[in-house]
Amino acid sequence: MIDLYSSPTPNGRKITIMLEELGVEYNPIFIDLDQKKQFSKDFSKISPSNKIPVIVDKDNNQTIFESGAILLYLAKKYNKFVNEEYYWEIVQWVFFQMAYVGPMLGQAHQYLFYNPGKSKFAEEKTRGYTKHIYEILDKRLSKQEYFSNEYTIADIAIWPWTARFERHQIDLNNYPNVLRWYIQISKRPAVIKGYNVVGNFFEIPKP
Amino acid sequence: MIDLYSSPTPNGRKITIMLEELGVEYNPIFIDLDQKKQFSKDFSKISPSNKIPVIVDKDNNQTIFESGAILLYLAKKYNKFVNEEYYWEIVQWVFFQMAYVGPMLGQAHQYLFYNPGKSKFAEEKTRGYTKHIYEILDKRLSKQEYFSNEYTIADIAIWPWTARFERHQIDLNNYPNVLRWYIQISKRPAVIKGYNVVGNFFEIPKP
Repeated sequence: MIDLYSSPTPNGRKITIMLEELGVEYNPIFIDLDQKKQFSKDFSKISPSNKIPVIVDKDNNQTIFESGAILLYLAKKYNKFVNEEYYWEIVQWVFFQMAYVGPMLGQAHQYLFYNPGKSKFAEEKTRGYTKHIYEILDKRLSKQEYFSNEYTIADIAIWPWTARFERHQIDLNNYPNVLRWYIQISKRPAVIKGYNVVGNFFEIPKP
Repeated sequence: MIDLYSSPTPNGRKITIMLEELGVEYNPIFIDLDQKKQFSKDFSKISPSNKIPVIVDKDNNQTIFESGAILLYLAKKYNKFVNEEYYWEIVQWVFFQMAYVGPMLGQAHQYLFYNPGKSKFAEEKTRGYTKHIYEILDKRLSKQEYFSNEYTIADIAIWPWTARFERHQIDLNNYPNVLRWYIQISKRPAVIKGYNVVGNFFEIPKP
């Protein structure tokens, strides 16, 4: 059994979607970010950076933080949504999500959504990163159905971030390949279920 | 033989240091970021996000972008600076570097170093992230010599970012455990050599 500490955010949803895709039993534990529960003493012990998600795999007592590490761990444990032949291609797109898509779209949330008008300079910078990211995604998806040879943890890592296109002030119709991929994945039963596992209910945004 | 496309930046230095630590032959190719060479047509083909570093392993024709993926690949290929017992602990700290240390300290470079005075709001936000990151590093290193059980790719990923403490407006003397670890690693011959492989020569900063 896996304990999952999570919230209804893009990083949290990566793991609830992955676990639903795997069809394994798990125990979701809601960490309420509005109540700053990520800074509690108990949670700090398993999450040194005070971030969700974190898993504790009771089978072997392995604790893992960082959603990218958790995805790789689960993919390896169940031998699904990753494959030997394309392993490094998949891993590099997971890192691309973790190092660029997540942090920079996260900055867009900060400057465009939570704090509009506080800094024109940062808003402009953020818009530049956002556009660059959607262009890279669109270019990749213009050549192939998924980020690697099939539906993998690279897609599972990236998709929940694109589901925040409204906060990024992005019209997905301007990125037709992302749009096609986004809609296709949003119809998967495990994605629909995994989108809402902890916290309040939210509809999957429709472009 | 490995072709390495790189620049003298924290992400570039991770890989030159790793290759020097491994003691393997490689062919460093300088990508001049001041001249915007990362946007050239040829480089875009191997780096969809126009970022360095990228490797092409001529042994098997494997191209990999994203420094975290490259570190994992090289560690696995040569079976060094990673170990089975602590594998997921090491991987999670590499992801922590890729998802938080690099992107947020990179934002500090943008707002505090390259564009001071352009946005007080973004500068304050950035200072908050920076402080949080150094606190996390210091806390971890107060408990153990390295980020995992021995010197691993987690240290190789994080160290080059802490070498930019001046740009982060951080006095390492306020983080005594980071300071001890920083100095210890900066004496390693492979780190001294790997710090300057491509581009102009820079001294390793002394706290």
